[in-house]
Amino acid sequence: VELKKGLSIHLYGFERAMGKRAFCNADGDMLVVPQAGNLVIRTEMGRLHVRVGEIFVVQRGVRWAVDPAQEVAPGTRLSGYILEVFAGHFRLPDLGPIGANGLANPRDFRSPTAWFDGTRADPEDPWTVTHKFGGKLFEATQAHSPFDVVAWHGNYCPFKYDLDKFCAVNSVTYDHMDPSIFTVLTCPSEEPGTAVADFVIFPPRWVVLEGFRPPYAHRNTMSEFMGLIRGEYDAKQGGFVPGGASLHNIMTPHGPDAATWKAATAHKDQHPVKMPDTMAFMFESCYMLKVCDRALQSPSLQKDYIKCWEQFPDNFTGVHDK
Amino acid sequence: VELKKGLSIHLYGFERAMGKRAFCNADGDMLVVPQAGNLVIRTEMGRLHVRVGEIFVVQRGVRWAVDPAQEVAPGTRLSGYILEVFAGHFRLPDLGPIGANGLANPRDFRSPTAWFDGTRADPEDPWTVTHKFGGKLFEATQAHSPFDVVAWHGNYCPFKYDLDKFCAVNSVTYDHMDPSIFTVLTCPSEEPGTAVADFVIFPPRWVVLEGFRPPYAHRNTMSEFMGLIRGEYDAKQGGFVPGGASLHNIMTPHGPDAATWKAATAHKDQHPVKMPDTMAFMFESCYMLKVCDRALQSPSLQKDYIKCWEQFPDNFTGVHDK
Amino acid sequence: VELKKGLSIHLYGFERAMGKRAFCNADGDMLVVPQAGNLVIRTEMGRLHVRVGEIFVVQRGVRWAVDPAQEVAPGTRLSGYILEVFAGHFRLPDLGPIGANGLANPRDFRSPTAWFDGTRADPEDPWTVTHKFGGKLFEATQAHSPFDVVAWHGNYCPFKYDLDKFCAVNSVTYDHMDPSIFTVLTCPSEEPGTAVADFVIFPPRWVVLEGFRPPYAHRNTMSEFMGLIRGEYDAKQGGFVPGGASLHNIMTPHGPDAATWKAATAHKDQHPVKMPDTMAFMFESCYMLKVCDRALQSPSLQKDYIKCWEQFPDNFTGVHDK
Amino acid sequence: VELKKGLSIHLYGFERAMGKRAFCNADGDMLVVPQAGNLVIRTEMGRLHVRVGEIFVVQRGVRWAVDPAQEVAPGTRLSGYILEVFAGHFRLPDLGPIGANGLANPRDFRSPTAWFDGTRADPEDPWTVTHKFGGKLFEATQAHSPFDVVAWHGNYCPFKYDLDKFCAVNSVTYDHMDPSIFTVLTCPSEEPGTAVADFVIFPPRWVVLEGFRPPYAHRNTMSEFMGLIRGEYDAKQGGFVPGGASLHNIMTPHGPDAATWKAATAHKDQHPVKMPDTMAFMFESCYMLKVCDRALQSPSLQKDYIKCWEQFPDNFTGVHDK
Amino acid sequence: VELKKGLSIHLYGFERAMGKRAFCNADGDMLVVPQAGNLVIRTEMGRLHVRVGEIFVVQRGVRWAVDPAQEVAPGTRLSGYILEVFAGHFRLPDLGPIGANGLANPRDFRSPTAWFDGTRADPEDPWTVTHKFGGKLFEATQAHSPFDVVAWHGNYCPFKYDLDKFCAVNSVTYDHMDPSIFTVLTCPSEEPGTAVADFVIFPPRWVVLEGFRPPYAHRNTMSEFMGLIRGEYDAKQGGFVPGGASLHNIMTPHGPDAATWKAATAHKDQHPVKMPDTMAFMFESCYMLKVCDRALQSPSLQKDYIKCWEQFPDNFTGVHDK
Amino acid sequence: VELKKGLSIHLYGFERAMGKRAFCNADGDMLVVPQAGNLVIRTEMGRLHVRVGEIFVVQRGVRWAVDPAQEVAPGTRLSGYILEVFAGHFRLPDLGPIGANGLANPRDFRSPTAWFDGTRADPEDPWTVTHKFGGKLFEATQAHSPFDVVAWHGNYCPFKYDLDKFCAVNSVTYDHMDPSIFTVLTCPSEEPGTAVADFVIFPPRWVVLEGFRPPYAHRNTMSEFMGLIRGEYDAKQGGFVPGGASLHNIMTPHGPDAATWKAATAHKDQHPVKMPDTMAFMFESCYMLKVCDRALQSPSLQKDYIKCWEQFPDNFTGVHDK
Repeated sequence: VELKKGLSIHLYGFERAMGKRAFCNADGDMLVVPQAGNLVIRTEMGRLHVRVGEIFVVQRGVRWAVDPAQEVAPGTRLSGYILEVFAGHFRLPDLGPIGANGLANPRDFRSPTAWFDGTRADPEDPWTVTHKFGGKLFEATQAHSPFDVVAWHGNYCPFKYDLDKFCAVNSVTYDHMDPSIFTVLTCPSEEPGTAVADFVIFPPRWVVLEGFRPPYAHRNTMSEFMGLIRGEYDAKQGGFVPGGASLHNIMTPHGPDAATWKAATAHKDQHPVKMPDTMAFMFESCYMLKVCDRALQSPSLQKDYIKCWEQFPDNFTGVHDK
Repeated sequence: VELKKGLSIHLYGFERAMGKRAFCNADGDMLVVPQAGNLVIRTEMGRLHVRVGEIFVVQRGVRWAVDPAQEVAPGTRLSGYILEVFAGHFRLPDLGPIGANGLANPRDFRSPTAWFDGTRADPEDPWTVTHKFGGKLFEATQAHSPFDVVAWHGNYCPFKYDLDKFCAVNSVTYDHMDPSIFTVLTCPSEEPGTAVADFVIFPPRWVVLEGFRPPYAHRNTMSEFMGLIRGEYDAKQGGFVPGGASLHNIMTPHGPDAATWKAATAHKDQHPVKMPDTMAFMFESCYMLKVCDRALQSPSLQKDYIKCWEQFPDNFTGVHDK
Repeated sequence: VELKKGLSIHLYGFERAMGKRAFCNADGDMLVVPQAGNLVIRTEMGRLHVRVGEIFVVQRGVRWAVDPAQEVAPGTRLSGYILEVFAGHFRLPDLGPIGANGLANPRDFRSPTAWFDGTRADPEDPWTVTHKFGGKLFEATQAHSPFDVVAWHGNYCPFKYDLDKFCAVNSVTYDHMDPSIFTVLTCPSEEPGTAVADFVIFPPRWVVLEGFRPPYAHRNTMSEFMGLIRGEYDAKQGGFVPGGASLHNIMTPHGPDAATWKAATAHKDQHPVKMPDTMAFMFESCYMLKVCDRALQSPSLQKDYIKCWEQFPDNFTGVHDK
Repeated sequence: VELKKGLSIHLYGFERAMGKRAFCNADGDMLVVPQAGNLVIRTEMGRLHVRVGEIFVVQRGVRWAVDPAQEVAPGTRLSGYILEVFAGHFRLPDLGPIGANGLANPRDFRSPTAWFDGTRADPEDPWTVTHKFGGKLFEATQAHSPFDVVAWHGNYCPFKYDLDKFCAVNSVTYDHMDPSIFTVLTCPSEEPGTAVADFVIFPPRWVVLEGFRPPYAHRNTMSEFMGLIRGEYDAKQGGFVPGGASLHNIMTPHGPDAATWKAATAHKDQHPVKMPDTMAFMFESCYMLKVCDRALQSPSLQKDYIKCWEQFPDNFTGVHDK
Repeated sequence: VELKKGLSIHLYGFERAMGKRAFCNADGDMLVVPQAGNLVIRTEMGRLHVRVGEIFVVQRGVRWAVDPAQEVAPGTRLSGYILEVFAGHFRLPDLGPIGANGLANPRDFRSPTAWFDGTRADPEDPWTVTHKFGGKLFEATQAHSPFDVVAWHGNYCPFKYDLDKFCAVNSVTYDHMDPSIFTVLTCPSEEPGTAVADFVIFPPRWVVLEGFRPPYAHRNTMSEFMGLIRGEYDAKQGGFVPGGASLHNIMTPHGPDAATWKAATAHKDQHPVKMPDTMAFMFESCYMLKVCDRALQSPSLQKDYIKCWEQFPDNFTGVHDK
Repeated sequence: VELKKGLSIHLYGFERAMGKRAFCNADGDMLVVPQAGNLVIRTEMGRLHVRVGEIFVVQRGVRWAVDPAQEVAPGTRLSGYILEVFAGHFRLPDLGPIGANGLANPRDFRSPTAWFDGTRADPEDPWTVTHKFGGKLFEATQAHSPFDVVAWHGNYCPFKYDLDKFCAVNSVTYDHMDPSIFTVLTCPSEEPGTAVADFVIFPPRWVVLEGFRPPYAHRNTMSEFMGLIRGEYDAKQGGFVPGGASLHNIMTPHGPDAATWKAATAHKDQHPVKMPDTMAFMFESCYMLKVCDRALQSPSLQKDYIKCWEQFPDNFTGVHDK
């Protein structure tokens, strides 16, 4: 009797292929961002090979399984990020004045062709299907493979996208644009202009704007969850490692750290700069995000995060009005 | 009994101040782009000083007069372009993923403060008000000045904008964006995504995209009327002078000329380039534009315009399928 | 191959019953405002008795005939106004903050019950049906009566409304409201907030607002056609007779005459006033209205209309800025 | 300065292949319904083989040529119908309660793959391109073929559809549905629920509704242009031949002829009937259609068309109310 | 401080008239489907006699009471289904291409005329009004009857509908339509195309489609709650009795049972079939439905329901890809 | 992972200035209605002086502090009402037929100019910022003042409004309008026509309608929370004191008390009446409001509120239908 709207963010890690197991999420769609370890996805509509640097989306109700794409050395974990939305589906943003091309181009999204499993039904060695429904996990077994579709048509099907194909757009004169300009996919809310979840990336690109180049300090009406696939994020130099995550919830002030600010303001001459190879991303949402206990008690929790802003000098040289 | 929807484009030229004359357009709004000669606009809401490089908009039903801002040498004409729309009003485009800032910022539009004329009513030396209604001009005289407003409030008032404040956004990776990305103001049609008229500019900016940089050859579902305020337009090097105009109507193929294409494809190494000082603009419309006889018979008509594309080589080296 | 959108306004006058004639308008709906002479309307859905002070609407494609409700003395003409719209239909305005009641209440609109004609088909004495299509009139004869419907259901049917049932709303503090506050029926255009035609009335009501009470001088983005059914219109005292009409087209300045202005500003003490019995109305439209030759050459044309504003004094006592 | 909205209907007939000629319509899209003679369409995006019983659509601005698919015997004309729309594009109707499948299924529309012409550029034997712009035809020559595209992507491309794949839906209980239930493609107007043009077919199907089965007599708020590809139309038995056309403009009464009515009402027992092989169609529009002189003066004009309704008996047995 | 959106489904059973008790639901509207026992509903707007085969709707905030329509034999329970929605109201679906008629016709919905209770106020024998607010029940007494309205106007009033008047539409060629084609009433959600609750019926009708006729196996993005008023449901022959209920929640796979599938595929010749007298229905919702403990522990729970699909053979005769 | 939509209503009371404390609400916007004690608001955008009779709004995420505007006598509490919304922002209602002016005029809303605090950063005497996030309060300290903004632009800024500038509109003929006609600000829900919260006032105004003048008894589909700033509320004469509050939740019947009803119906002659100086207001919401324990256990709770309706006589003189 309840419709949970919203989103959930997960960090995953696993070491083995799933074998005769499959998963199905009745609650919503899942966008997966591999950070370590290339993957092969089996779905009812076919298989997808997904490299690190690509993302994939599996829709609500579709059965799928995930395996390492290559042999995995013992003790190695394949890991990454999952964005789960309980409302609608991911789609390309309306481009507005950007026009008919730019950002993620439709033709670069890839869906599988039909494929069926080679195993015959075997009641002695059944398949297990895990079904997520209403936030709980249910399990059932069946003798035959769930991956037995020999042909299909339609457009409700899993897809992948290579983030390096993103056509980034940005200021070529002055000023710092909102991160929405880097939106790859959006799951819009019913309120125009806000989103249950935006998937935004910060890819390699030319930086030519004249003026202060890092993002400015701000409070956001949306929550910002950031992750890093490779390289270095330009507003937290050295303070943010691949596989890590940061969360700035709604209306929590944040911005580049003091070191970044100092480096940026010291420059007199602003040449065009081609950013080094990096791929940071953001899950942005109009929902407030609660943090689960496991994360709060994690040894990886960066408890002195606030110190990155403590070195900002007081630059005001005017007279204080008493 | 008739509602003319659409637009009209005019080129103006004059030499003298208007004195005791005023104009009022009951048919629609007018966007004026001065190309030669700074102007002072008198309106019922006050005065605006408009330099070349700025534009101004006067709404339907507002009385106004225009004068040279400085003394004009004999034989010198002040000239420029007028875009008249018979439907709705000009407004900023919705920015979409560009976000909350960028392109023309609202705070850079300037409206006048109240001002009234110093002349007393004089039936012997009356004012003349020219009224454009239904495409025809009517004249009436009145003893007192139409510019007699001592205070006003509201938001239906003339404004000007300095094109050099435009925050241009463009590709910082690859590909050529649609010109809509340079939209300053739009007068939208009732069909989302199309416009009775878009006012688009090509301002000084960094060009960093990697690949073929000039616009590609295309047919457009909108009509393109181009003008040049200063400098040189990058897709017609030398073939387009300030004060000139070109028109490519709906679905007429066009693109950069052969010389531009050759220069662009000859480059091996594509460095960032800061475009030289230039200000071209486009009036783009979903309407087909008819050309008046006066323009077709003008000695300035460029009759050999088509030759600019004749030097394209045949590059196809495959086998023709017979 | 053409869709004429817009409206047309007619003044009618007739002396006789239509007998075996019927009319059908394929171009649009007609709203009829009788000014002299009660009427009986025959339609395919039944008969309506329409008094002066009521209005009726017959939709596009419905056959109807109109007769005097009583015997008419020789030389007497029944007359009134017709508003014809070529786009959509008339409907109640959305009331906005006015809420669930007020203005014209749905339950006060009356449609006929089925009725059929008593005459048998007679090829010797046929009926004539006049059909208006594409602005032209066509005629056809048929042996049987077009009013032969014995039962019907649906909601596409003629209706009448008694203007004295209008629940007028207005300022009970200060300021003069827009006439849209008196809208009885609207035929909206595709542009929200504007109308192909609004039918607006100025009925008997309490006037209590404190400040200047007559309408202010203005230019309107819509055309205003006014008529008077009975009594006196409060902004043109004595200058506007029942059955007359005035037209102020788009952006033409107008307002109360000088006499009305003087009377209103002379009052020191503003008591509540119950307006005397009057019923003026306005057809307001976002279209420009052309005036037909017959009206321009009519002996009733009020050629000195502009004089009503000539007596406005110059009240500005400040110093003129030279 | 003018945007002609609306539609135009043409009947075509030709005998020869177009050779080195191509056509381009800058005014709008064209939907072609071949009635006699299979066709091969050359377009910039590739070739389509279109049989009688299929339809094809070429969009505004796309160059194309049409040829007979087989050798044509001397004196034989290939003929059919063309629906040209000057507003928007054809798309599938929103299905509403019909759900996710039914009517024309998206997967049955076919677009061409890229194909280029085998001829080399030859200034001595140039191509002629006819361009329709603003209702007029313009001609230009060029040495190379306009069909020289070796690869393309996008979704603005010609398509064809086989009408026999239409999944017809209709009443399976009682009552006669509106013809909109047979809509293949629609070009919607800006007014929800009406269309610049609907393309509607009457394909072979089961008729099971209980009650009066032919369409009822009616006046329509849209214009109805009917054509017949093969077989017999069930509301005009014998009175409508393949290749013919009928037009019932807005609000013109019409319906099944007297013979059809008599046959339908004589049935006592209403078994399910599988309609014989037939394919009638309708172009339906909210615009009034003017008929060109050539059609009005055609020897094929059916001048006694009105007689088909003259045999309706007078069935009213009640007492006439005098 | 909370707005529970969604729906609730109840099965009711009672044996006695309500006497001096009345009920009022402040949370939402209730749609009642009697399955056993005709009813008389008393409401503030009047009385409705509701037979089995009819349904009725009482809106939020309206007081009502329900009694058996006839004397009830001891031990007999009147029973049926209730669908309660906490968002908006039930309305007819937009018909889309189905047009102006079909499915449930507006004129077949019946509301009561005013009626008042014959009992005088009596403080010694008061009425009890039960008020459902925020999911809880509150009780209050009052001396006078709540059914004391002598006249009313408006359109917020209870109504009933006879399901046998439903004009069913379905495929008359091939393919199986979505059940939305049988929608009687819908309570739409804020997301176009989905519903808080659809009320769908499967009435007697002709089945003529050629191909596989039972519904196909599927997962649905909406929850399906089915009930049966009379007869037999065609996808569960013998396995579903009148008064029973089944629930297939969001994304739970289901379909016709193996016996139904076998019977349907065994047919070689597919004649039109008039379905026997039956009336199944579905409450379909975009919300996930939780099942209450009482239902889970009911002795009527069909624990071996899954067995109906176990007899499906493995028909794949191709080579398994290993 | 949760988005609480809705509203919360608070009554505040305080005695001291906040000093080096600031507050920030990350959950939503707050509309404050002072009832006793003028206030000075410090915000990041500047200071506002807010008198009793004015209201102010502080948006989500803006830091602010509130102080008494004058010295406060010991034991005196400053008090008033707060309306907090967790969805969207407050805006002016669309005026509908009321037109371009009326109700609250945009130009009467006042926002602060930039102002910065005179205190220097002092780690020994830090500031405390209280942050409301997800319904919980968090505290942090910082050495420098949060009110250190020397200039700003934008439109996301606090504002105040003087309720005496409200231009009230009401019936000037007959009938009682819905209270929506007195809407000052609305925070609309996603369902057109309903609101998360409307702020409605009952200001001094002329009452001229002829008929029964107090509000009628009703059940409302929205919750009504009423407060009183000064004077007397006309539907509860003497039963409602300034600073008090009443709550009539969704679908709870209520109306003027018996004394008010008796006085209103006793009048034979209905003169225009200028209402005495009063300012009641209503927070109206489509949400059900839960009452907190503290309010339910307050000694101020009016437990015999229901008695105000017990003196209504039974006026029905017809025959009861038994």
